[in-house]
Amino acid sequence: MEIITGGVTAAKGFEASGYEGGIKYKNRKDMAMIYSQKPCVAAGVFTSNVVKAAPVLWDKEVVDNAPFAQAVIVNAGIANACTGKEGYGYCKETAEVAAKALHIPEHAVFVASTGVIGMQLPMDKISAGVVELAKLKKETMEAGTSAAEAIMTTDTKSKQVAVQVMIGGKKVTVGGMCKGSGMIHPNMCTMLGFVTSDVAIAKELLQEALSENVKDTFNMISVDGDTSTNDTLLVLTNGMAENTQITQKGADYDTFVEALNYVNTELAKKMAGDGEGATALFETKVIHAKDKEQAKTLAKSVICSSLTKAAIFGHDANWGRILCAMGYSGAMFDPEQVELFFQSKAGEIQIYKDGVATDYSEEEATKILSEPEVTVVVDMKAGDATATAWGCDLTYDYVKINADYRS
Amino acid sequence: MEIITGGVTAAKGFEASGYEGGIKYKNRKDMAMIYSQKPCVAAGVFTSNVVKAAPVLWDKEVVDNAPFAQAVIVNAGIANACTGKEGYGYCKETAEVAAKALHIPEHAVFVASTGVIGMQLPMDKISAGVVELAKLKKETMEAGTSAAEAIMTTDTKSKQVAVQVMIGGKKVTVGGMCKGSGMIHPNMCTMLGFVTSDVAIAKELLQEALSENVKDTFNMISVDGDTSTNDTLLVLTNGMAENTQITQKGADYDTFVEALNYVNTELAKKMAGDGEGATALFETKVIHAKDKEQAKTLAKSVICSSLTKAAIFGHDANWGRILCAMGYSGAMFDPEQVELFFQSKAGEIQIYKDGVATDYSEEEATKILSEPEVTVVVDMKAGDATATAWGCDLTYDYVKINADYRS
Repeated sequence: MEIITGGVTAAKGFEASGYEGGIKYKNRKDMAMIYSQKPCVAAGVFTSNVVKAAPVLWDKEVVDNAPFAQAVIVNAGIANACTGKEGYGYCKETAEVAAKALHIPEHAVFVASTGVIGMQLPMDKISAGVVELAKLKKETMEAGTSAAEAIMTTDTKSKQVAVQVMIGGKKVTVGGMCKGSGMIHPNMCTMLGFVTSDVAIAKELLQEALSENVKDTFNMISVDGDTSTNDTLLVLTNGMAENTQITQKGADYDTFVEALNYVNTELAKKMAGDGEGATALFETKVIHAKDKEQAKTLAKSVICSSLTKAAIFGHDANWGRILCAMGYSGAMFDPEQVELFFQSKAGEIQIYKDGVATDYSEEEATKILSEPEVTVVVDMKAGDATATAWGCDLTYDYVKINADYRS
Repeated sequence: MEIITGGVTAAKGFEASGYEGGIKYKNRKDMAMIYSQKPCVAAGVFTSNVVKAAPVLWDKEVVDNAPFAQAVIVNAGIANACTGKEGYGYCKETAEVAAKALHIPEHAVFVASTGVIGMQLPMDKISAGVVELAKLKKETMEAGTSAAEAIMTTDTKSKQVAVQVMIGGKKVTVGGMCKGSGMIHPNMCTMLGFVTSDVAIAKELLQEALSENVKDTFNMISVDGDTSTNDTLLVLTNGMAENTQITQKGADYDTFVEALNYVNTELAKKMAGDGEGATALFETKVIHAKDKEQAKTLAKSVICSSLTKAAIFGHDANWGRILCAMGYSGAMFDPEQVELFFQSKAGEIQIYKDGVATDYSEEEATKILSEPEVTVVVDMKAGDATATAWGCDLTYDYVKINADYRS
């Protein structure tokens, strides 16, 4: 597997664009398009929130019933959630405008929105923006970056990843982009993520690969425990790599899943590390757990603990909060048997063993915790299962951003 | 029912004291004693965290097996959690010292600790403190207040409540104290709460009354979603009101439960409103829910949402976050049917109806949300069940307090 630069335009035949539609923000791009020159097999996973935004309902319809997909229209600023029938109508209208501009069927168009809940979209601006996006779309890396920038809300960085693998003697590319960075606690997929690939693969296998993979990638991150109404992760594959179509599990499928896993993991980590107000990516790796379920439950509980997150912000080796978060996770275990370690580029240190603190140096621990990426390793000493979850620290800026998000 | 001033010394025959033991803090009381002149029937509920602090293990033992209880020793500063066999030994030692000083059996002594996890107690200071507490104890209201002040950690106010009811022609008093204010998400009871009463009641009924009541009181509050390792709520009753002992359910039992419910509710609200860094008590009242379970799930999910809590801090009527938190709570409902209202001393306003925002005034909403106690009323329009949960806003100071708690 080769890691390359790029995002949604890295795979063959995919174009993208970003545009300043004036939806809500001023002086920045807030609309994006992804377009494939050929019809795509598509798969999607969506929020498990009972309150589903209108675009989620529209996209589920497309994934389930449309014969193919070929474009995605995204806007930032307004989430089109809690907007009733009027909001759903705007999804359809957006798809109609895009279909006309791109000469594709209306049901080949995905739509996605992110931003404030409860406001209606300014449909005239959206329509005008879609027409411009269609004119601007290009196959270049820059066009991919422009789209990745346009979908940002409180993100501080755009997020793109791409890799190449060989499948059946053909070079296959998988690339993606996503955005965070608040209301992030995906319970099916993430806020907004888009992955494109030129692989040729059957629709059922693509959906299975995606549904399985999000469990270990996007579903293992949390910024604030709030599962959004808009979570959407779409994968579009257009077959232009010309590999023999993957129609069953086996070596080719595994290679594609490996590439998809890399892209999803890196996008998920970028999202966690750029959580609202975050100064650090906070990783929790549970090893030697009894089973996978236990490992995942423990890892997620630790990265979700407000107290632990605040301690990470303070570079404070307050390991008791980690053990406490494990204790209320719902997983059963013997606290006396567990071992805890802190890890970062600055080193590794054991903190807890045999039910009590080790004789570690607070100074060294603080040094390790002062890096922009810190890891807690939890050794359960009970089995072979492993899981990793990613979050971020809890900071003044998280409060600042969210106390006054709408104004 | 008459509400009176006072706390753990309000009921007949209860004495208390507070003392500056120098456990960890400087220039403040950090040790407290509650003592009953007569042996007590006792009940307790404790943390459901798998990682249980040593005093929790000790107290469970006393509740389950001791013939009676007569005293409680509390220290603040060090939690005696994750301290292994050594920590449990210190509980026993504390009880021994208290038993000797008070001339009661060792197993009539409860111990409770709150503060930093992972440190060992300075046993010499604890022992010396217990001896002093025994000398200082008094029946006065001031003595109760002294104890309530001594158990504080990051609390900004001491917390006491007391009421009187008539049972079988006798005046019965129920009083209590508690402390918060971080790592508060009780899943069995609260951080530390102590209720005393002179009622005469059978042990099984007392435990049942307590276990049932915490479900609607202490288990309905959250400051930060972190269920502590030390959560303990004890009720001691010494029978000195001389009512005919309550040995079965009926009018007398109901009257006592009403008094207990008032004390527990008010203590729980005090704890939520004085959550770490909080500027407001944030109440969520779910009405007309399908069933009690749904009402409780929804109410708790709203008061636990970091995004909603931050919006309350900003006096921002960001109702979409409330609906979002209801949506990911796990409860099933039709979002289009729900109605939302904001309430406070400054007025009431409807915010959401028929799936969309009402035409409310942002200015008026902000005015309502600027009070120190704000309520969200969620009308499910689906049945008769009701539940209320209490939390607080999420502020800069929460982060500040917890990024640097140990130093």
